[in-house]
Amino acid sequence: MKEAIRSWQAALGADNVAADDVTRDRYARTTQDTGTRPLCVLYPGSTAEVQAAMRIAAEYGVVVYPISRGCNWGYGDACAPTDGAAILDLGRMNRIIEVNTELAYAVIEPGVTQQQLFDYLREHRTGLWLDCTGAGRNASLVGNALERGFGHTRYGDRVLSTCGMEIVLADGRVLNTGFGHYDGAKAAHVYRYGVGPSLDGLFFQSNLGIVTRIGLWLMPKPEAFRFFFIRLERDEQLELLIDRLRPLRMQGVLTSAVHIGNDLRIFSATGRYPWTETGGRTPLPNDVRARLARKAGVGAWNAGGSLTGLAGHVRASSRALRDAVKGLGRVVFVDDRKLAFGETAARILRRFGLGKRFDTQLDALRHNYGLLKGVPTDEPLQGAQWRLREPPDGGACNPLDAGCGLMWISPVVPMTGRDARAVLSIVEPIFARFGFELLATFTLINERAMIAIMNVVFDKADADETARATACYDETMDAIIREGYHPYRTGLRGLAKIRQPDDVFWDVATVLKRAFDPNDLIARGRYIAQMDK
Amino acid sequence: MKEAIRSWQAALGADNVAADDVTRDRYARTTQDTGTRPLCVLYPGSTAEVQAAMRIAAEYGVVVYPISRGCNWGYGDACAPTDGAAILDLGRMNRIIEVNTELAYAVIEPGVTQQQLFDYLREHRTGLWLDCTGAGRNASLVGNALERGFGHTRYGDRVLSTCGMEIVLADGRVLNTGFGHYDGAKAAHVYRYGVGPSLDGLFFQSNLGIVTRIGLWLMPKPEAFRFFFIRLERDEQLELLIDRLRPLRMQGVLTSAVHIGNDLRIFSATGRYPWTETGGRTPLPNDVRARLARKAGVGAWNAGGSLTGLAGHVRASSRALRDAVKGLGRVVFVDDRKLAFGETAARILRRFGLGKRFDTQLDALRHNYGLLKGVPTDEPLQGAQWRLREPPDGGACNPLDAGCGLMWISPVVPMTGRDARAVLSIVEPIFARFGFELLATFTLINERAMIAIMNVVFDKADADETARATACYDETMDAIIREGYHPYRTGLRGLAKIRQPDDVFWDVATVLKRAFDPNDLIARGRYIAQMDK
Repeated sequence: MKEAIRSWQAALGADNVAADDVTRDRYARTTQDTGTRPLCVLYPGSTAEVQAAMRIAAEYGVVVYPISRGCNWGYGDACAPTDGAAILDLGRMNRIIEVNTELAYAVIEPGVTQQQLFDYLREHRTGLWLDCTGAGRNASLVGNALERGFGHTRYGDRVLSTCGMEIVLADGRVLNTGFGHYDGAKAAHVYRYGVGPSLDGLFFQSNLGIVTRIGLWLMPKPEAFRFFFIRLERDEQLELLIDRLRPLRMQGVLTSAVHIGNDLRIFSATGRYPWTETGGRTPLPNDVRARLARKAGVGAWNAGGSLTGLAGHVRASSRALRDAVKGLGRVVFVDDRKLAFGETAARILRRFGLGKRFDTQLDALRHNYGLLKGVPTDEPLQGAQWRLREPPDGGACNPLDAGCGLMWISPVVPMTGRDARAVLSIVEPIFARFGFELLATFTLINERAMIAIMNVVFDKADADETARATACYDETMDAIIREGYHPYRTGLRGLAKIRQPDDVFWDVATVLKRAFDPNDLIARGRYIAQMDK
Repeated sequence: MKEAIRSWQAALGADNVAADDVTRDRYARTTQDTGTRPLCVLYPGSTAEVQAAMRIAAEYGVVVYPISRGCNWGYGDACAPTDGAAILDLGRMNRIIEVNTELAYAVIEPGVTQQQLFDYLREHRTGLWLDCTGAGRNASLVGNALERGFGHTRYGDRVLSTCGMEIVLADGRVLNTGFGHYDGAKAAHVYRYGVGPSLDGLFFQSNLGIVTRIGLWLMPKPEAFRFFFIRLERDEQLELLIDRLRPLRMQGVLTSAVHIGNDLRIFSATGRYPWTETGGRTPLPNDVRARLARKAGVGAWNAGGSLTGLAGHVRASSRALRDAVKGLGRVVFVDDRKLAFGETAARILRRFGLGKRFDTQLDALRHNYGLLKGVPTDEPLQGAQWRLREPPDGGACNPLDAGCGLMWISPVVPMTGRDARAVLSIVEPIFARFGFELLATFTLINERAMIAIMNVVFDKADADETARATACYDETMDAIIREGYHPYRTGLRGLAKIRQPDDVFWDVATVLKRAFDPNDLIARGRYIAQMDK
């Protein structure tokens, strides 16, 4: 191992290899129940250095775990599935290689953060919008796409806006997908499939190679933009809402990823668990829950999304949306003018020492509104602090710095009210039994499916709560999988649960792993099972 | 070989194995310069029979070439890349297994034709529309999707509307992709990726398995539908048109696959080459070309597409489209009412013995209009008859029955006028040199790319023309590839041209082939190169 590290130091420069305990401890932190501790951390600065690092890994048989920015919140953070890996931190590879404003795409490296590309697009007046996730300003666009994370706009399905990848293979060679492997290919970043088999899918949620560059489609600023939200007073209205939104999503009236969060999830975005008011009891008693909802003006379910397009499109879509939810709840529309008006009103109220609640609501609105225009924000990360006994030092929003416990359970659910309710009925009793109230959202991710995010949020400083969280996670995952609602993504703890014996799919995945990485050195155990010796 | 055939007869029934010369000759027919002759043809009736057929193929080492309906017009028809293969004709597997009207998808087998699914959707009043290609009523939906064929509607990118595949592997096992490999998975046909690596891409344009079933997303009938066409008088207006349509496509104003065909391509859709008028000279002289265009009311370039959505959307989009092409050409809109009006007018004119030209135009319009609503038609196949010296017996429209020669060259082109012109400038002189006028279309297939279809059309009965066609094909393919415009798909003759030495991509494809099909028995040489012994 010492020799491997010396070789890496020679190849990458001594400054770009860290094997000290402080660094190793820092990369071992996790919001999950337990993490893993790496052997060392490598900081390559280029594709060539990643190739060199891989050749050395092969020589010494060391497992390498590539991360982009290590912000895989709720799913394992920067931790490898196994102890003793060399973390390949691609954060230094943060070049925006190309932005094509005519064809609306960027070519970026894994270290490029949401904030960085956002700033670039704005500063250079490109007229192009980003699709952002709630993973925060410092999260990597490439890393999130490779985990099939989803955003909030028309380009919310990140897989569909990834076009052309550069991948370092286990043997150190570089593979380009799509048309990118042909010299001078004109369509490398405008047409995803190339000719012949399409290999891109192999490098999402897997460990078959190290992606060092992607083409990313960007959205031209629309002529018109309108944010909307809908508040449902009663829990049982959820089914109706979903069944009424589905036709709008399929007809192209709704094109953004509509987000439907329950009251608890909204509370967690703006504050911590009411420890004093509940006298420390968990899960949240119903009367306190009702009081909080009234106080914050939050519904049992709260939907938000955006309408974009020509002004005429947005007008027609607004009408259709209003008609569709008639009798369920009122649709509130917000556009730039209305938001500016709100800001003015808030300033005036503040002058009179009034409008505190309005301020809070306006602040939340501002973040959500921005997110749907591709403005990165750290605000959604606040939700991870829900169960902390004390607010974090200095108001840290990085969940690791704040000591948050967070494990996401995120099944894919057909877009019907029936299925949404079925999932809730499975999950809610389990959460309650372990002392957790269910913070949940459903996101309309394509025209036919939603992703439900169930938040197992806990205080890592509390050993009992951590143990209960872990048990709650295990039982919930087992239950939803048994009922046919499989997660779209999983953290370290869930990896073994999505694999099953005698499954041709996972057998084939293992065959692929043997073909691509016979020594099982890239991200061993990530999605594809660790190989038998 | 005899024993292999006997085993297949035992497994599939004697009636479902044909090794007679008449059948073999029929399957050897092609619109390309030369085809290949199979050993025999197998007609399995189920996935289990495909598995059995593959096990026998493995036992005797016979190459198997799966086809759905054998309508791979212009790209090799039903022919395997190599002589002596057992054609696995999946035409009997034509079950529509499920149609889910709530979530708008169907699950179908490879033998299901465009017409069959269309009829089913209409008869059962599902309110769902199909996306059709121009490959004709008898073409397979699965076969076309696996070749990444494209249609004409909002669902024109067939890859994106394929969700969940069942695949028989070379060893006879069955692989299900997406979530489909989990028992009772609820989201198998509503979310494409499943969890873990996505394998679907491997089975498009390749030979790694035999797809026996797919989920296919269908389009709910839109509230409003409007067909549009735009006629450009002058060839040099093409660049401007593309550059003005691009922003509309990116903004979601145009969501269908807009089709832009030149005058020659339109002529070929409605009649044959004017052999008498030209005295047999080729390529088409400019004065005759101009006369034909005037007579038929055809522009140098002719664009067509559809606007769909809410009535308000379609109104706003129509205005935007009209504004965008101002000064270039007039946009003509057609909806159901206007078409009915046209039909009435035609009837009246006919009563007076008038309106022949109008009749022809109306007929072409009717087919295009229908195609954009997902109504299958054989009309686009007429184009293959352009160079026939005599009209085919009994008005056959199957290009094989009619004796047509057809090789398509279909590069992907970034959606800019500059790139479109660059491609034409490369191709036109080559076509002219070999005595062919360039029948060409550009289709806006996604928000950033077009697929150009260049038709090498010839009369197979004319040996000299066939030889020139072949040389023209070779030279054009080499030239566009050299300039970075790579084909999205290719027939037998082009397969060797898209592969290149020392290309990690094709090396990886071969590694995959070895892993999936070590004896190289499925569709040997199709996209992925034949293995060295």
